Parts: sequence; structure tokens; C-alpha cells
Amino acid sequence: MTTSSVPATAERPLLLRAAGGEQTPHPPVWFMRQAGRSLPEYRRLRSGGSMLAACRDPDLVTEITLQPVRRHHVDAAILFSDIVVPLVAVGLPIEIVAGTGPVIAEPIRTAADVNRLRRLTPDDVPDIGQAVRQLVAELGDVPLIGFAGAPYTLASYLIEGGPSRDHARTKALMHSAPGVWHALLDVLADISTTFLRVQIEAGAAAVQLFDSWAGGLSAADYTEFVLPHSQRVFAELGHPEVPRIHFGVGTGELLDLMRSAGADVVGVDWRTPLDVAAARIGGQTPVQGNLDPALLLADWPVIETEVRRIVAEGRRAPGHIFNLGHGVLPDTDPEVLTRVVELVHAS
Amino acid sequence: MTTSSVPATAERPLLLRAAGGEQTPHPPVWFMRQAGRSLPEYRRLRSGGSMLAACRDPDLVTEITLQPVRRHHVDAAILFSDIVVPLVAVGLPIEIVAGTGPVIAEPIRTAADVNRLRRLTPDDVPDIGQAVRQLVAELGDVPLIGFAGAPYTLASYLIEGGPSRDHARTKALMHSAPGVWHALLDVLADISTTFLRVQIEAGAAAVQLFDSWAGGLSAADYTEFVLPHSQRVFAELGHPEVPRIHFGVGTGELLDLMRSAGADVVGVDWRTPLDVAAARIGGQTPVQGNLDPALLLADWPVIETEVRRIVAEGRRAPGHIFNLGHGVLPDTDPEVLTRVVELVHAS
Repeated sequence: MTTSSVPATAERPLLLRAAGGEQTPHPPVWFMRQAGRSLPEYRRLRSGGSMLAACRDPDLVTEITLQPVRRHHVDAAILFSDIVVPLVAVGLPIEIVAGTGPVIAEPIRTAADVNRLRRLTPDDVPDIGQAVRQLVAELGDVPLIGFAGAPYTLASYLIEGGPSRDHARTKALMHSAPGVWHALLDVLADISTTFLRVQIEAGAAAVQLFDSWAGGLSAADYTEFVLPHSQRVFAELGHPEVPRIHFGVGTGELLDLMRSAGADVVGVDWRTPLDVAAARIGGQTPVQGNLDPALLLADWPVIETEVRRIVAEGRRAPGHIFNLGHGVLPDTDPEVLTRVVELVHAS
Repeated sequence: MTTSSVPATAERPLLLRAAGGEQTPHPPVWFMRQAGRSLPEYRRLRSGGSMLAACRDPDLVTEITLQPVRRHHVDAAILFSDIVVPLVAVGLPIEIVAGTGPVIAEPIRTAADVNRLRRLTPDDVPDIGQAVRQLVAELGDVPLIGFAGAPYTLASYLIEGGPSRDHARTKALMHSAPGVWHALLDVLADISTTFLRVQIEAGAAAVQLFDSWAGGLSAADYTEFVLPHSQRVFAELGHPEVPRIHFGVGTGELLDLMRSAGADVVGVDWRTPLDVAAARIGGQTPVQGNLDPALLLADWPVIETEVRRIVAEGRRAPGHIFNLGHGVLPDTDPEVLTRVVELVHAS
């Protein structure tokens, strides 16, 4: 029995209530890539320095992570980082090339390559824990979402040597050398787990595991070659009180498998309506999404109609966190994002 | 009553029998992009000349189209062309940039831009009809598939100015300026229709309408902004005896809508198993697909297992044309393609 007349849940952040399957008065809202190139204050801060250096500077990470919270009044911050940060932290020679993405000079393709990889320890990323602690102190009631790439997506960068449209080498390796594949994914699952756990133990209130490229896989390939490793990340993370969000773009055929990896919330892109997605994953799991980020470049009445539709579809799901169906595009007008937050909050 | 003791259908090419919903002893097989960079004889022939010039040279088109038929013994040829060929034929300044794709110097984004477009007449592409006639004469019993890009995919190139990952300008335009959008798609539907009709009237036995990028759209956007125009292409084409194949990558959520556009055969990528796809489109329509082209880079036992699985899944569909789930990747070993054809024919 509580001494307060207000229900305890009403004092918890909206994000955590929706992630716990509660129907909130309006959905909490945040945006994938809300910190980044769409914001002039970000572009000013980043001019000159490298992306990877920025991700390892606690003060810069803190400031960049806070920018969209201050500007848009979103209901969650997400740690500003890059999925290759923990890979660089274990000594892999990766660079982020502007206009291309992460590039690794010597791709990982053999058992010998995998054997040379080492696992991540918290001591490799003291700056990440520090950034999270600073952020939690600054954010007050706004929850911070921790961030990591999932083993498959990390593997695809390491094997291809950079971004790829078809992930042909990755798929060929998983099928033709399954021993090498599973050994690689085992190390990467460990790295993802440690990277997320560092963030949780420094105060992150939720985590999102990004399997950005999983949508390129058939369900059969996902089940055999990816799911066990993503499952292990969530299982070994500990801290079951911290909600796990799991997302990949183009994963309409994989949503229930991604839920079964251990997700408390399944992220959905714009291709699958939220109510359809919620039914597809069994009707018990909250969903996150799913405004097409391209539509933020349309006129406001178009966006307003889309936001209202998505909020209505989300009401038919057991918990809804409003988000885009993929990351904010760099050309997005930040004022439009602010208006979307206001509209979701007023709905 | 026929004087022959052999059923008439048994003499028809396998491709047309499967497209007509007949269960064939084994599926007919061809590959998207079977003519092209995977073949050394193609690379020898093309060295020096531009892609667009090659597509307009009837002798070169004939030779390139025949190469994979001779080499792999596939059950169909597909006219070697590019989806921008009819756009160039109406005077649009498009270039194909190696490693990038089609690039248009002045994108089409306003009503004035659309008003300057003109429609295609058969006289704009006499070379295409000539190539088809030459091919039909050379191919004998092997059917030739005609080829065109669908209005949406053509529009996305014209609006973006080239290939795009997110098609943000295209989506913004369709929503914010629907009048401009529908006027543009109207012209493009007309161009696609004429381009296909020229090929049919010169002897193409089937046609495939490629909506390569449709899979980036939500079902709601597809229904409102794309479907009516693709429908018009198929409806106005005439020649109902010529089977229409309709394909786009990543279209799991759109398959039944693409069927409803007027497709006799729905192409399916590797993300959706063929039996699932066949059920999703109502269980009456043949399917085409769906080996992941990336897996052709794996070892042969992997490919063999995949081919057998797909043939088995295709047997549960009302007619199956074996194909990849997207185009042949340039790095593919052509001998592997030949073995896939042999395996499908032996199954």
C-alpha cells in the first residue's frame, strides 16, 4: 500500500510505462537519429572532428545526446554513438568515411581472422560509462536509452569491409563456413552484451539493439544464423527490469522472430502497420514506430494525417512508443520534428 | 478436337504453361539479369561502348540477350535493356553512370517539368521492335520475355535525379503535390505500356513489369499513389494472351496488391517463402522466384539445398517459374548458374 494517492505507475516515465505494456494517455515519442545531422547545433559542434572521436568524448556525447531533448522535448534520450564504437574499442581498424559509412581495411572472413578478435571489457570504454552517468544526471526524469548494434549487423560490416547493398559475402560465409560464422557471431554477441551492460550499469533506463540489416535475410537464415546470437545478448545482459527494444528496417517477415530473441518492445518500420505488426508478434508485446522518415519532407498536413493514423493504430497495440520507421534523414527540418512531438503529446 | 495425340499444352513452352497456372513436371527457370556482367562473353562484347548505346543497337541486344540462353539453357530469354531506355527515347537527358546507375541532370519535380514530358510512340523505338523480331527468329521454341520499368520506379529515378536509398523526394512529392504526382505517373504509365506493346507486337511471348523500388512503400501509399498506374499499364496493354509478370524486391507486404494490378504471375523475393507468398496472393496465381542471389556466392551444397527447397515450396503454389529473388550479382560464377538450371530441370 502506498501513501501517495497517485498511482505509482503515473510517476514513471511514459517510455517505461509503454514499454511495460501500459496504455498511456498518449504515446511517448522519440526519434531514431534524433541527435545528429538534422540539427544545426549538432553540425556546429561536430564541424572539424571525426565521428568516432566524437563518440568517445564524454562531454561531446553528453551535449549531442541532450540537444534533441532540449529542442524537441522528446520523451527519451538515446546515447549518441555508432554501432562500430565497441568494435573500434577492441582494436579493429575501422574508419567512418563521410557519405559512405564504416569501412574496415582488412575484412574478417576466416577462422584466423576471428581468432584474432578479442572481447570487450568495461575498461575498454570508460568514456561510455562516464557519458551515461553525466547524461543521467542532466536528464532528470527523461530516461536514457542505451544503444548497441546487433551481432548480425556488426558482422555484416566486418565481413563486407563496409556498407553493402546485398550482403553477399556475409550470406555466403554464414552458409559456406558456418563454424567461422558462429564463432564470429559469438564474439560479437559478447561485445554487444558488454557494451549495453556498461550503459545499463551507468544508469541507462532502457536499451535498443539495432539489427539494421537483418531485414535482408530470409526467416530461415535469420532463425539459423542470427536469432541464437541476438537471444544470447538479451539473455546474458541481466537487469530484466530494463526494457529491451529490438529494431531492424524491412523486417516485416521477421518481427515475431525478433520478439522471440527476447525483445520487450519490437520496433517496426513503415511498411507494416502497427496494429498488423502487434498481431503478428502475438498481441502481447508493445511496438515502437513507425512514421516513414521520408514523409517528414512532405507538407505539414500530410505529416499530421500520418501521425494521427499511427497514433490510432498504436492504440490497438499493447503499448506503443511513437518513433519513425527508420532514422531521421539529414535533410529533415528540425522544426517539423518538434511539431510531431507536440502533436503526439496532444493526441 | 486435335489430330495430335500429344496434349496441346505439352508442346507449349514450360514458361507459358507455368504462367498459365499449370503444374509442370519441373519449373521453367530463368534469371533476372541473366544477360549481363556475370558473363565473360558479355564483358568482352560491352567493353568500350555505353550501356544506353548497347540497349539501342538491335544486333548487340540480340547477341547479349541470347548469350545466357546458349550458355545456361534457361527456359526463357529476357530482352536486354534498361528501365530508362524508353525515358531516353522521349528525349530525357539521362546517363547511366558506372557504379551509380541512371542519373538525370535535371530532375522532374514540378507541374511545368511534367508538362514538358512527351509520350512514347512506337516510332521512337524502332530498334526495340527490330531486336525482338531478330530474337524471336533466333530463339525458336524459347520464349522471349519483354521488359519495362513500372511507373513508380521510373518516377523515382526522375524525381530523385538518380538512385536513392530512401526515395524521400519521391514520397514527399506524391503526398505534397498529388496532382503533379498523378500527372507524372500517368505519362509514365503510358510510356511503359507503349514500350511493352512494341515488344509484344514484335513477338515477345510474355512481359515482366519491374517495380524495383515499390518495396520501399507502405501498402497505403502503394494503393493510393502507385497501384492505379500499374493497373493501367496492364489494362491498356491489350494482348491478354501474353502473360504479365510483376516484380519488385522487398514487396512482402505488397504482393497481393501487385497481383491486383493485373499480374498473371507475381515475382517474389527470398524474404517470403513461395508457398507463403502463393497463399498471401489468394492461392490462384502462379509465382516466380526466389533464390537469394547472394547465396549463389556460397558453396554448391548450400545452393543445391536452397534450390531443392524452393522447388518444393513452388510445388505448393499454383504454377511456379524458378528465378532468383533479385538480379544476378556481377560477381556470380556463371558455371554456378548453369548448374542451377540443370538441377531445376532434373528436379
